[in-house]
Amino acid sequence: MTKNIYTGIIVNLNVDTVTLPNGLTVDLEVVRHPGASAVVPMKDDGTVILIRQFRHAAGGFIYEIPAGKLHPGEDPIACAARELEEEIGYRSGRLELLSSIFTAPGFTDEVIHIYKATGLTKGRQQLDRDEVLEVIEMSLLEAIRMIEAGSIRDAKSIVGLQAVYLRKITR
Amino acid sequence: MTKNIYTGIIVNLNVDTVTLPNGLTVDLEVVRHPGASAVVPMKDDGTVILIRQFRHAAGGFIYEIPAGKLHPGEDPIACAARELEEEIGYRSGRLELLSSIFTAPGFTDEVIHIYKATGLTKGRQQLDRDEVLEVIEMSLLEAIRMIEAGSIRDAKSIVGLQAVYLRKITR
Repeated sequence: MTKNIYTGIIVNLNVDTVTLPNGLTVDLEVVRHPGASAVVPMKDDGTVILIRQFRHAAGGFIYEIPAGKLHPGEDPIACAARELEEEIGYRSGRLELLSSIFTAPGFTDEVIHIYKATGLTKGRQQLDRDEVLEVIEMSLLEAIRMIEAGSIRDAKSIVGLQAVYLRKITR
Repeated sequence: MTKNIYTGIIVNLNVDTVTLPNGLTVDLEVVRHPGASAVVPMKDDGTVILIRQFRHAAGGFIYEIPAGKLHPGEDPIACAARELEEEIGYRSGRLELLSSIFTAPGFTDEVIHIYKATGLTKGRQQLDRDEVLEVIEMSLLEAIRMIEAGSIRDAKSIVGLQAVYLRKITR
């Protein structure tokens, strides 16, 4: 049984009555999210393109990879291509799926599909009015060092950057 | 301005009226979460100890590292030690902070503090009634391969396992 608590712009909140595999019946809060795609944009010289974005819930500006919510019925790879161009103004010759992650499976069904983008060419940046961000380029190794130093703290961004780096150094 | 929509057991839902750095004022849904700690438990022989846990929001059982919510006022490292023993029945000689990540900064303030645990000794597992999980041991490399294959999909677990593996192969 699902009880809808709130229908919002980004998320809905439900309380689901669930019988667990051990037989116990519990009420669980579930934040329903449409899902999202995220992209590690990598230039031919190994530079990655990040954004530094204002996130109210995180208390200020944080480093992230370009990302955005799936439109209704949208294919995750199309969403990745769209967000890449809208947020940083690049088109991609190739998008390769790295992972589809659960961000916080204790309370939300959100899945983020993370791609590596290569073969980048200039497109046209088109930010939404509520997107406040700057585009920042750095070497992949520098990004990895920033994760280790605690300067990059966004989960999807860390997963994507570490996955790209691991593939690079172990193959 | 904050409007409380719902006060739950795990999360609260607020709608905050926020003036962005570009001057635009918007209403933003914010899921407030107490924060959590997570642990990559590593035995002396390089084996990692994971759990396979039932997660309603993720639609079934998923692989994770041991983790749990902070109690009110609890130090994250104490939470990590507590959850390590409660969920898998091990005590740790050493807990090293790897990262403090934002799981989904677009809509929640949740931060997870991820530790590497070494010097493991047997303690006593004590599961909550609503925790349905089995403990699974594998080599760190096997866990990395399961991330690449899409079998491990939980964000905090991927961040922690990749970080431990990167430190191991690059130092």
